[in-house]
Amino acid sequence: MTSSVTAHPASVATPAYDGLARTFERLHHLQHLQSIAAWDRASKMPPGSNEARAAAMAEMAALMHRMRTEPTLHLGLERAEQEPLDALQRANLREMRRQWRLANALPESLVQRLRLATSRCEHAWRTQRPANDWAGFLVNFREVLAAVREQAHRLAQTTGLGPYDAMLDQFEPGMTCAQLDPVFGAVRQWLPGLIDRVVDKQSREPVIEPRGPFPLAAQQALSEQVMRLLEFDFSVGRLDLSTHPFTGGVPQDVRLTTRFRDDEFLAGLLGTIHETGHGRYEQNLPRELITQPVAESRSMAIHESQSLSFEMQLAGHPAFAGLLSPMLRQAFGDQPAFEPGNLHRLITRVCRGRIRVDADEVTYPAHIILRYGIERALIEGQIEAEDVPAQWDAGMAELLGIDTRGDFADGAMQDVHWPEALFGYFPCYSLGAMYAAQWFAAMRREMPALDAGIARGELRPVFDWLRRHIWLQASRHETAELAIRASGEPLNPAHFKAHLEARYLG
Amino acid sequence: MTSSVTAHPASVATPAYDGLARTFERLHHLQHLQSIAAWDRASKMPPGSNEARAAAMAEMAALMHRMRTEPTLHLGLERAEQEPLDALQRANLREMRRQWRLANALPESLVQRLRLATSRCEHAWRTQRPANDWAGFLVNFREVLAAVREQAHRLAQTTGLGPYDAMLDQFEPGMTCAQLDPVFGAVRQWLPGLIDRVVDKQSREPVIEPRGPFPLAAQQALSEQVMRLLEFDFSVGRLDLSTHPFTGGVPQDVRLTTRFRDDEFLAGLLGTIHETGHGRYEQNLPRELITQPVAESRSMAIHESQSLSFEMQLAGHPAFAGLLSPMLRQAFGDQPAFEPGNLHRLITRVCRGRIRVDADEVTYPAHIILRYGIERALIEGQIEAEDVPAQWDAGMAELLGIDTRGDFADGAMQDVHWPEALFGYFPCYSLGAMYAAQWFAAMRREMPALDAGIARGELRPVFDWLRRHIWLQASRHETAELAIRASGEPLNPAHFKAHLEARYLG
Repeated sequence: MTSSVTAHPASVATPAYDGLARTFERLHHLQHLQSIAAWDRASKMPPGSNEARAAAMAEMAALMHRMRTEPTLHLGLERAEQEPLDALQRANLREMRRQWRLANALPESLVQRLRLATSRCEHAWRTQRPANDWAGFLVNFREVLAAVREQAHRLAQTTGLGPYDAMLDQFEPGMTCAQLDPVFGAVRQWLPGLIDRVVDKQSREPVIEPRGPFPLAAQQALSEQVMRLLEFDFSVGRLDLSTHPFTGGVPQDVRLTTRFRDDEFLAGLLGTIHETGHGRYEQNLPRELITQPVAESRSMAIHESQSLSFEMQLAGHPAFAGLLSPMLRQAFGDQPAFEPGNLHRLITRVCRGRIRVDADEVTYPAHIILRYGIERALIEGQIEAEDVPAQWDAGMAELLGIDTRGDFADGAMQDVHWPEALFGYFPCYSLGAMYAAQWFAAMRREMPALDAGIARGELRPVFDWLRRHIWLQASRHETAELAIRASGEPLNPAHFKAHLEARYLG
Repeated sequence: MTSSVTAHPASVATPAYDGLARTFERLHHLQHLQSIAAWDRASKMPPGSNEARAAAMAEMAALMHRMRTEPTLHLGLERAEQEPLDALQRANLREMRRQWRLANALPESLVQRLRLATSRCEHAWRTQRPANDWAGFLVNFREVLAAVREQAHRLAQTTGLGPYDAMLDQFEPGMTCAQLDPVFGAVRQWLPGLIDRVVDKQSREPVIEPRGPFPLAAQQALSEQVMRLLEFDFSVGRLDLSTHPFTGGVPQDVRLTTRFRDDEFLAGLLGTIHETGHGRYEQNLPRELITQPVAESRSMAIHESQSLSFEMQLAGHPAFAGLLSPMLRQAFGDQPAFEPGNLHRLITRVCRGRIRVDADEVTYPAHIILRYGIERALIEGQIEAEDVPAQWDAGMAELLGIDTRGDFADGAMQDVHWPEALFGYFPCYSLGAMYAAQWFAAMRREMPALDAGIARGELRPVFDWLRRHIWLQASRHETAELAIRASGEPLNPAHFKAHLEARYLG
């Protein structure tokens, strides 16, 4: 992205486009303050300040919503279509239109209904989940489902897509069930067998457990050291603590959060590495257009492909343990568990479990395929809210061989997504894992010495490839085009299967 | 403040007032985000993010300025005057009108000119001050002065006040030179002699110096412990670090900052205590009207009277050292300097110096009276920018007996106020010290056992008095009325003189 949205030859007048660019620049600046306030709320804000902060952020959200639904904006979009725009401006206009469509698709009454239903459901869920209270949850969740079906119906009308496709499209533009079904269908066939073989193989490979405690200050220092190895730019970013790790802030000021427990360090460290992937994507979005929609990250799956490139492809790489090992010894003192081979086995240990967020990269797709099937059937009206547990138990039995009957807390109630009406989001996690494998396959084709370099600590070629093909591309191209330009093909899940087989059975 | 701005009997319609209340509520919410972003910038933001943050905050400032200068707002103010408002609503309307007048007094071109001139002057000042480059500073400062004279002229037209009075009124509504002149004139008479006597007396009282280093983590823990003693509410506030200590955030989420050096602890601790006074005022503003102008702090001098009630009246109280002493021993280990009598002598040591922000409470007014005379003469055109050093040297010689000739860096260039066009602000510092002495005189009349209680660590009566008479009053009354209701009289500087004589010569 070398040209600029604002620098035109004087002879080419694009007043409608220029007006839109200014509006989106204003939105970008206001979103900056909203993002920092959100990070602060999760990471620094004292507990008693929540009500005032929520009111302030709601005011800002309403203000930005008014800007995005301002009637003249539609007129501007229509007029700009007729203006002599270059390719980059046209891509920016496409992304503007997309954001406009999302903001204008739902009537205010439905937005309000969704907000009330999710807020009630999510709030009660916080206590219902630990109490395993499915019956209580169901009362509120039915309201969420009714509202979200209406949302899917409205989005489908606006986009011309099917109702679940329209929900997907919010997070992963261009992705449809027609593409997902064969992809996830194939995984469903080979995954249970692969898990069996990996678990069997690993049962014959003894692993030495690390011994704690692992002081929190040492974990913080270690995390920052690893982030530096991964070239996170601390001059425009920070690492702090929060209950749930996330990447917040803005591209010019990326705020990562993580969490530490003193009896364990690996989950915290891998969480930090995951967020560092998100963070580097944001930090390397093209600066010259940073205020415009075209300079925003492409999609949730592409974002996840960056965090998983860091967490799974890099940190799970057999050579990465060799880089990490001396850092662990420095942080916590020497112990047998930190031997590189053992450390790699610790990082890549596969285990059938009930909890998605704790899952390894091999079993993770099972959690996603399960949720995809259920939430799509819910949106399309093939099942009702009360049918979820039976579907859940059957899916977990089939995909992971786990009996989950009666456990709602660590079953269908484990994630915040459904209480918050985030239907259509789950597939992005596995799509991200697939894209990450596809990027690394492309890198290896271009750079046959890549793995030998990683073993020597040379991670720069990886970052340069990602910067050139993903980060600096931002939203210039739609996802399929981005994938083709980066790797020579659209989404190809064969790379993911080959990656798992090579790493876990090779 | 027990009644509410929004709860009316159904029969009394106040649509114009209600509309204004909603507008100011929206501004309150947006200001919340702006305040948190400002705190973050000073305390957490990585250095490379400044440009993006500045752009975001400028966008928000412009947006709030548009809301405050929206033409219908004036109409609303006019109409609300005719509505059947109660006393509290009328006070709120008065404060709304005041904020409206301040926002609408200056044409956009002048606001722009001030912004450019101060931004250029302040930026260059950061390097010119260490280089003692008065000639370089003068070039930019002349531009600031020309713009600020125009500002004073405009504000004078709007308010009907004199030009310097109009500048003062921005920070200390109702205060005028006619009131200040006799007050500062009297201080100018007795202060040099008082300083002589105090310095002479203290020269015969040996003081043991504390021995460092004082670990920063121990200073942070000590600061938080002292803030708890002073009943700062950490459930709606925090303490962090910044280059210059300040009280930021919002009443529902007060963000104090301080700074520590490991070779010294007392300045850092007293700075924290000072900010805690500001913080408790903000935390205890009346919550039921918190979104409205009437619930904001009364003025800069009243705010400063709270920080100085904590720093000077309380921390400088002979009994306070007895409360502090065990905390210091716990934080840094025992040493002779922490003996309560010695500690009190350390806290109340008087020293003639060049730097205002390092000054003790006895010499401080000299720094203010000097600046008041110079900045008023500048605004009124009796002197020009190039005349400042001569005036400075003469004033420092007269008031403090110090020869400052040739030292511009620690002379007229030491404060950021003039580069930033904050003319009319300096008097508030000394007015705050005078009000603080007046509050404690009133407390002692009401509670003869106050000092004996303080010696026993019973600070609650002080806080209760301040809460009732100052904090919960917010902006319900104008300053003179607030002072009369709190202490039975308007500003009476005799209490300040009596306080200094009792503490330093008693």
